[in-house]
Amino acid sequence: MFNPFFKNHGPFKISELISLIDSKEKINIDKEITDINDLNSANNSELTFFHSKKYKDIARKTKASYCLTTELLKNELPKSCIAIIVDNVLVSTSKITSLFYPQSINDDFDKTVSNIENIKFKNKVTFGKNVLIGENVLIGNNCKIGHNTIIEKNVIIGDDCSLGSNNVIRNTLIKNNVKILDNCVIGKHGFGFFPIKNKNLRYPHIGIVLIEDNCEIGCGATIDRGSMSNTIIGKNTYLDNQIHVAHNVKIGENSIIAGQVGIAGSSTIGNNVRIGGQAGISGHLKIGNNVEIAGGSGVIRDIPDNSKVMGYPAKNIREFLKDNR
Amino acid sequence: MFNPFFKNHGPFKISELISLIDSKEKINIDKEITDINDLNSANNSELTFFHSKKYKDIARKTKASYCLTTELLKNELPKSCIAIIVDNVLVSTSKITSLFYPQSINDDFDKTVSNIENIKFKNKVTFGKNVLIGENVLIGNNCKIGHNTIIEKNVIIGDDCSLGSNNVIRNTLIKNNVKILDNCVIGKHGFGFFPIKNKNLRYPHIGIVLIEDNCEIGCGATIDRGSMSNTIIGKNTYLDNQIHVAHNVKIGENSIIAGQVGIAGSSTIGNNVRIGGQAGISGHLKIGNNVEIAGGSGVIRDIPDNSKVMGYPAKNIREFLKDNR
Amino acid sequence: MFNPFFKNHGPFKISELISLIDSKEKINIDKEITDINDLNSANNSELTFFHSKKYKDIARKTKASYCLTTELLKNELPKSCIAIIVDNVLVSTSKITSLFYPQSINDDFDKTVSNIENIKFKNKVTFGKNVLIGENVLIGNNCKIGHNTIIEKNVIIGDDCSLGSNNVIRNTLIKNNVKILDNCVIGKHGFGFFPIKNKNLRYPHIGIVLIEDNCEIGCGATIDRGSMSNTIIGKNTYLDNQIHVAHNVKIGENSIIAGQVGIAGSSTIGNNVRIGGQAGISGHLKIGNNVEIAGGSGVIRDIPDNSKVMGYPAKNIREFLKDNR
Repeated sequence: MFNPFFKNHGPFKISELISLIDSKEKINIDKEITDINDLNSANNSELTFFHSKKYKDIARKTKASYCLTTELLKNELPKSCIAIIVDNVLVSTSKITSLFYPQSINDDFDKTVSNIENIKFKNKVTFGKNVLIGENVLIGNNCKIGHNTIIEKNVIIGDDCSLGSNNVIRNTLIKNNVKILDNCVIGKHGFGFFPIKNKNLRYPHIGIVLIEDNCEIGCGATIDRGSMSNTIIGKNTYLDNQIHVAHNVKIGENSIIAGQVGIAGSSTIGNNVRIGGQAGISGHLKIGNNVEIAGGSGVIRDIPDNSKVMGYPAKNIREFLKDNR
Repeated sequence: MFNPFFKNHGPFKISELISLIDSKEKINIDKEITDINDLNSANNSELTFFHSKKYKDIARKTKASYCLTTELLKNELPKSCIAIIVDNVLVSTSKITSLFYPQSINDDFDKTVSNIENIKFKNKVTFGKNVLIGENVLIGNNCKIGHNTIIEKNVIIGDDCSLGSNNVIRNTLIKNNVKILDNCVIGKHGFGFFPIKNKNLRYPHIGIVLIEDNCEIGCGATIDRGSMSNTIIGKNTYLDNQIHVAHNVKIGENSIIAGQVGIAGSSTIGNNVRIGGQAGISGHLKIGNNVEIAGGSGVIRDIPDNSKVMGYPAKNIREFLKDNR
Repeated sequence: MFNPFFKNHGPFKISELISLIDSKEKINIDKEITDINDLNSANNSELTFFHSKKYKDIARKTKASYCLTTELLKNELPKSCIAIIVDNVLVSTSKITSLFYPQSINDDFDKTVSNIENIKFKNKVTFGKNVLIGENVLIGNNCKIGHNTIIEKNVIIGDDCSLGSNNVIRNTLIKNNVKILDNCVIGKHGFGFFPIKNKNLRYPHIGIVLIEDNCEIGCGATIDRGSMSNTIIGKNTYLDNQIHVAHNVKIGENSIIAGQVGIAGSSTIGNNVRIGGQAGISGHLKIGNNVEIAGGSGVIRDIPDNSKVMGYPAKNIREFLKDNR
């Protein structure tokens, strides 16, 4: 995953990692672990995690040296990978990821900001009153930034972008010629946590928001950054006002999304898709290319390319209209 | 009702109160009235109101000395309570409540604010640029308050809270370890008024918003304070982005509410409830404990404990999915 | 159309206008064109456009000297009107309108603003911290403007208005005794553009937002200005929080619109209409007077006066409830 922003605080000794979690394992070797990664990407200096049978084929081939898993799944792992048995794989994964990436858990306001008047690149930007800029921010040529907008830490903006007023942006990569209107919040962590009685446990969000060339983001949008992958808005995609894009969502190119639409976490939307106002897309779905979704629809299943759907649950638009004269 | 914020401007003479409203009553005794209260809570120095037959059993036992009511209902009152006949009980109640609590009607911006740099407790708070603090605000230890956030008058915040940027908060009690992200408006009056041609009449909102320990409130939330009771978010309840919580709503503990949900006035949501994105709950409903409401649902009836519902109107989820393959 | 704000940069020579667009016409006469206007309103110094057969009766009577149209439609025009044949009438219209009204295309933040402390009328307004005022702004007596609110260019506000904090307003005419709560964006261009692969083409929005006497606009509203007509909120109409009103929408008087409602472009809503929370109205519809639309409904057809509707698609409420026990 491309992630220029979150600093890996590793390596950590495996014994140190195990002491963080609820495992009864005793591992005396003090091997250094450089990162935590998924079953497929992890290398032999890394830790991985395996929590569901559906990943068993990938698990068998993992190159990781250690794997957080359960008694039931451990036998799927290769001999080169030592199982660390835990009660809850995802909670343990979260705790260890938090150690490697401590700044990806909580999104307190960014104390590092300064008024743009004090920033080196102020001369190539047109800016309003009270614009604040955090650490690790780069802005291209010929950009405009409106009043009271806060570019918190970890933001890269290309050329010819126009940002309105009252926006809050962090952990976001914006390409060229992008317009962001007013009152948007972009790059905050998503609504991702483990529900625990009395005190939920937030999991890390080490992804970013990536907004490609020529996009327009309407007023009042909230676009959350990804947890283990990025949230992406493809080239020349336009979002109307009051849209919510949850973490890990990927929207293709040349798509048009009308007001008050909500797209739940980890769903993928194709190219040339049109979504009418107030439609909702459930999480973890795949919406194909050239799909049209009527306003107000509730999409709860994958939609193949070139379909037109309507209703709740959304189905073929002709069928829906025939059933609902 | 627990209400630390709105100052009672009484007592007023009963003759003065009657002169405010459309009643033809002549009451010559200049008895002092200390407050206006509901039929059940009013004591013998207070005025009450009785506008619907469904409250007749409570009306019969009221201890109030005077009661705003109608010709049709007046005979239900005990002899100790003098009926004041009016054309519209709720409008008259509103006018008199407005006299006792004049600051609960209109929510003009708070002129009393100062920059937090000038506030006594600034040393125990970590704060951003342009943070404004109104009168009658208390903030606990180890709190963070983001840029441009306005804590208007009548706000108490506990320890270890993290508020983001661009929030506007008033008439709100926030307990410990609460997170409020960005661009929220919390504690404004609700959408409550009497529709009158050419010029509606707003009624008082003397309730507050109470946010219990360990809650998280997502970006762009609007949480209105109560009119005659409080709006409550229970412990460890998490709200995603762009949620609207109307006046007098009470949400239980450990509940999880996804993006763009709307909860209309005076509804009660139980503990351990999960509500999917964009679902809507009508007003004055009771949603039980451990209920799951699918995203996009429209709930228009009470939901018993432990139910899973989906659809519009929301019904048993299995039934809904069977009917909508 | 009443439009006090957008300056006409014409006249332009007809040859200059033609050189902007994809027409093969050669017109050697250097006639000056003063404006672009619809078929009905254009006079003989103006250019018009004709893109659909349904306007042929109006086209036959147009007084315009020139008309952007297609080979198929040109014969409907009177002899006094010279057809200029183009591939895409609306795109060509947009390009020429952009020349006459160059400031109506892009809504970059307003660089002309000053702190209200420096404005002439500051003494008759009660204002908060960091209030910014753009060029061509007039404010009446006894108004209140909350903290961080930005009144960008081209705004007229009447007497006795109360604006909250964090609002962004431009190109808007607000009459008397209007309340606008917090975090609203009013008067930005609508979601109107021609979808073109890789780079959409925005069309001009030369309309304004007009908010009549005694209205109330809730927190987080977005109300877009019109493209070729105005967006209007009629007298004493109240909008709850998080409502989206798209460009060219006209809402009548004494209407009540609950939270999170969305009204798509160019729809007209009558007087005394009540719309429940989260309802959506598709574009280009006509909703009559005294209509009630239940919360969560999706309206996709015109609704006659005095109807009560519910459902998606919205239909007679009794029928809906009978079908959905």
